[in-house]
Amino acid sequence: MYTVIEGGVTAAKGYEASAVEAGIKYKNRKDMAMVYSVVPCVCAGTFTTNVVKAAPVLWDKEVVENSANARAIVVNSGIANACTGKQGYEYCLKTAQAVAKDLKISESSVLVASTGVIGMQLPIDKMVEGVHKLVAAKAPGLAAGTLAAEAIMTTDTVSKQVAVNVEIGGKPVTIGGMCKGSGMIHPNMCTMLGFITTDVSIEKSLLQEALSNIVKDTFNMITVDGDTSTNDTLLIMANGLAENETITEKNEDYQDFVEALYYVCEYLAKKMAGDGEGATKLFEAKVVNAKTKEDARTLSRAIVASNLSKAAIYGCDANFGRFLCAMGYSGAQFDQNDVELFFESSEGRLQVFDKGTPIVFDEEKATKILGAPEVTIFVDMHEGNEEATAWGCDLTYDYVKINADYRS
Amino acid sequence: MYTVIEGGVTAAKGYEASAVEAGIKYKNRKDMAMVYSVVPCVCAGTFTTNVVKAAPVLWDKEVVENSANARAIVVNSGIANACTGKQGYEYCLKTAQAVAKDLKISESSVLVASTGVIGMQLPIDKMVEGVHKLVAAKAPGLAAGTLAAEAIMTTDTVSKQVAVNVEIGGKPVTIGGMCKGSGMIHPNMCTMLGFITTDVSIEKSLLQEALSNIVKDTFNMITVDGDTSTNDTLLIMANGLAENETITEKNEDYQDFVEALYYVCEYLAKKMAGDGEGATKLFEAKVVNAKTKEDARTLSRAIVASNLSKAAIYGCDANFGRFLCAMGYSGAQFDQNDVELFFESSEGRLQVFDKGTPIVFDEEKATKILGAPEVTIFVDMHEGNEEATAWGCDLTYDYVKINADYRS
Repeated sequence: MYTVIEGGVTAAKGYEASAVEAGIKYKNRKDMAMVYSVVPCVCAGTFTTNVVKAAPVLWDKEVVENSANARAIVVNSGIANACTGKQGYEYCLKTAQAVAKDLKISESSVLVASTGVIGMQLPIDKMVEGVHKLVAAKAPGLAAGTLAAEAIMTTDTVSKQVAVNVEIGGKPVTIGGMCKGSGMIHPNMCTMLGFITTDVSIEKSLLQEALSNIVKDTFNMITVDGDTSTNDTLLIMANGLAENETITEKNEDYQDFVEALYYVCEYLAKKMAGDGEGATKLFEAKVVNAKTKEDARTLSRAIVASNLSKAAIYGCDANFGRFLCAMGYSGAQFDQNDVELFFESSEGRLQVFDKGTPIVFDEEKATKILGAPEVTIFVDMHEGNEEATAWGCDLTYDYVKINADYRS
Repeated sequence: MYTVIEGGVTAAKGYEASAVEAGIKYKNRKDMAMVYSVVPCVCAGTFTTNVVKAAPVLWDKEVVENSANARAIVVNSGIANACTGKQGYEYCLKTAQAVAKDLKISESSVLVASTGVIGMQLPIDKMVEGVHKLVAAKAPGLAAGTLAAEAIMTTDTVSKQVAVNVEIGGKPVTIGGMCKGSGMIHPNMCTMLGFITTDVSIEKSLLQEALSNIVKDTFNMITVDGDTSTNDTLLIMANGLAENETITEKNEDYQDFVEALYYVCEYLAKKMAGDGEGATKLFEAKVVNAKTKEDARTLSRAIVASNLSKAAIYGCDANFGRFLCAMGYSGAQFDQNDVELFFESSEGRLQVFDKGTPIVFDEEKATKILGAPEVTIFVDMHEGNEEATAWGCDLTYDYVKINADYRS
């Protein structure tokens, strides 16, 4: 059983972080961050399925798949280094080389990540200068992790980090993470940018398997705008400093680790959904008793991804037909005559659709329920035993405002 | 070769129409319309692929597939008769029965269609009363068709109709149509509601084949908000009064008819996209030299469907990375190093991306091009010979406003 604690990427043993103003694109704010492990780590990652992959995604896939170990992650906000051709990839190499030289580690143990405008080249001199500052500033302690979580933000309104303790094989293990989200969020294999550190000792292949499985029900179940980014990257580093007996099989230790990691991923994913661009509330869809797990995921995602559903949630409009409509075009097969649909929040619970027939409900109560800061559409399919939950946010004027002129 | 003429569904020989205030949901506006043929017609249709099909869709599929002929279409706006269970289907039957009795025709030759709020039952007494008025008011002439096109609107800001003349086998043939769109527009097999009438003489199976093929490149290539409606219906009636030699094979007559029908469908589809809820402009994506036709369709649709692309078009923001990002997650495979991307409008043409590399372009010129009322993103894939065009609109504050409180 895990316990939630303070902190983020520097909560686990042996991790340091830093954040600096490099002037990549923003003025007067920190826009580069580094996470560093004092000893070599095994690492795993999941990446965007977008055919147009950003240069750092290509770089990190190479490191995750082929490097013996990882030591550092360097992140910049402001420019995404996507759609930047060969030069973009060379800039990943140059960034990693600068980190490697300053830290006296191998360039193939350096992960890089970028977020921001697509189709602009990075100012590489500023990046390299930023690396020097990051290495000089790196420090252990929770404050350093908090600064890093702030530096990776773009249109995010709050920074997002979390950490948990869990006992594994009699040893205290810590897992901490941070992420940024906000727009172009419809992850497919993982989220915009997420970074998790842990001191657990675990084999690389099991770390990757745990991460890939958990992502399916956490980061891959959120959406802000249906746009799967070119840069989606989720990385985890495990440095073994907890000194637990190395996890090499799917035993009880593995299960304990997975449970704690699941919490970290779900927490960060939900934070990202609730802080979607322009969002005023977290919009959750829970589908139960579906025929298959995949159906449950498909149906719940379709509800939170629908522009019409999202606009109705913004307006506290009990227009439940839009949720059924979204389920209907999701690709999952079902009979509307089996379906029950409920609104849920801290303000109560209300059934609105009963196996094919609309229910005449109390509009005032519905509006009150939908006015809460976290709203759930609960759907009982009455077709099987599988369930899934997806998270999104409402669609607001501010989403349009933010994205009608994002670059300026 | 066809000629565009005045009018809509009453342009062809032997068609009458009417529109009345039935008080279904709106006040002080016409909300029911009828199209009637003085002689029996062959008919064809394409319908929503949404699993949650509205009652009138189920009714019309039955008529299109199994009835010997069709005589009338009755349409109401305000309530969609979707998610309404058995009672909803019975109301289709009752509506058709009322029409059949008044017109002394078979109930199985009556098509019905509804658009509006999902999950509310129709006030059937008002519907039946409306039918009596529609039958009493039916009249030939272009004015009657225009009134019908107005009565089927919901959040549409303009009514949409078109007609063409084409000579087939030495006889003048007319095709006229009307449609409504605006929100919940992401047709998959056809559009929200579209009705086409023609006096051509053609075999039913060929009429269906022509319609189904044309829909793939016209109505199925538009999107407003990515939400495939429960009610999408496109119907065509052909009454043979043009007295051309009946088209029974894919000869020159068939090609002439298809060419004219294609124009009617494309015209109506584009009108629907440009009049999307809250839209300020028509947003077109043209993809050329793709590997396959399906790739070209997928890529062009992804561009106009992306919220981020749509918001950028609204803001005249030359953020071309969003178009590439949307292409990347569309499902089509390609190499960004082959791709060229251009902005086009009445204000000029500008290349912004050249085979993997962003081009440094004149921002002022880009903003001017994107400020036009019709904007095209032109993409050359350099991979094959197939092309497709998709149409959508920008994403604006008004889209959110309209949909945050649609029901009130």
